[in-house]
Amino acid sequence: MIARTPEPPYVAVIFTSQRRNGDEAYGRIADRMVALAEARDGYLGHESLRDAEGFGITVSYWRDEAAALAWRADTEHQEAQRLGRAAFYSAYSLRVATVTRQVHFEGGP
Amino acid sequence: MIARTPEPPYVAVIFTSQRRNGDEAYGRIADRMVALAEARDGYLGHESLRDAEGFGITVSYWRDEAAALAWRADTEHQEAQRLGRAAFYSAYSLRVATVTRQVHFEGGP
Repeated sequence: MIARTPEPPYVAVIFTSQRRNGDEAYGRIADRMVALAEARDGYLGHESLRDAEGFGITVSYWRDEAAALAWRADTEHQEAQRLGRAAFYSAYSLRVATVTRQVHFEGGP
Repeated sequence: MIARTPEPPYVAVIFTSQRRNGDEAYGRIADRMVALAEARDGYLGHESLRDAEGFGITVSYWRDEAAALAWRADTEHQEAQRLGRAAFYSAYSLRVATVTRQVHFEGGP
């Protein structure tokens, strides 16, 4: 579940959000957005968690800012963003960042 | 739980980790690290989640790289990092990034 990113620099999009209760469409649309993102040129990986109270953190990694911006502009993703503001989320923060250093640690079993 | 960060640029430290099972000291030390980080000059906020399988994402925000590096070099934090590698985590990734753009959305109740 830890993304295997290449050497920096690359782009991280940090999306933290608070879900509203009870929108049935959310899970299906979220899964669809993951599948679409993974298929895009420049997608490097993502890490995502959401707790029982609906607070979530998703970090997606992109080769460069152009790849992240192209995903933002995707038509189906734009519609999902609109639904996110209208229905799914009571609040969110989206941060675009350039990763300059990374360390991966593997401690064995 | 969504951090209230100032206008960019500032630094995000993205720490994703897989915990090992059953170290009793972890919760106490993790809480202590949060308290120490929050008290530091240049600390801007953090967002953190861990699931039942021990996968976690913590993003901490810092005024600048110097503030993030000073926290990394803190003596008590260094000891916690050593314990992290020796006992708490089977794997982790640490990414240091410069936030260049952000959007905060508040949708009301």
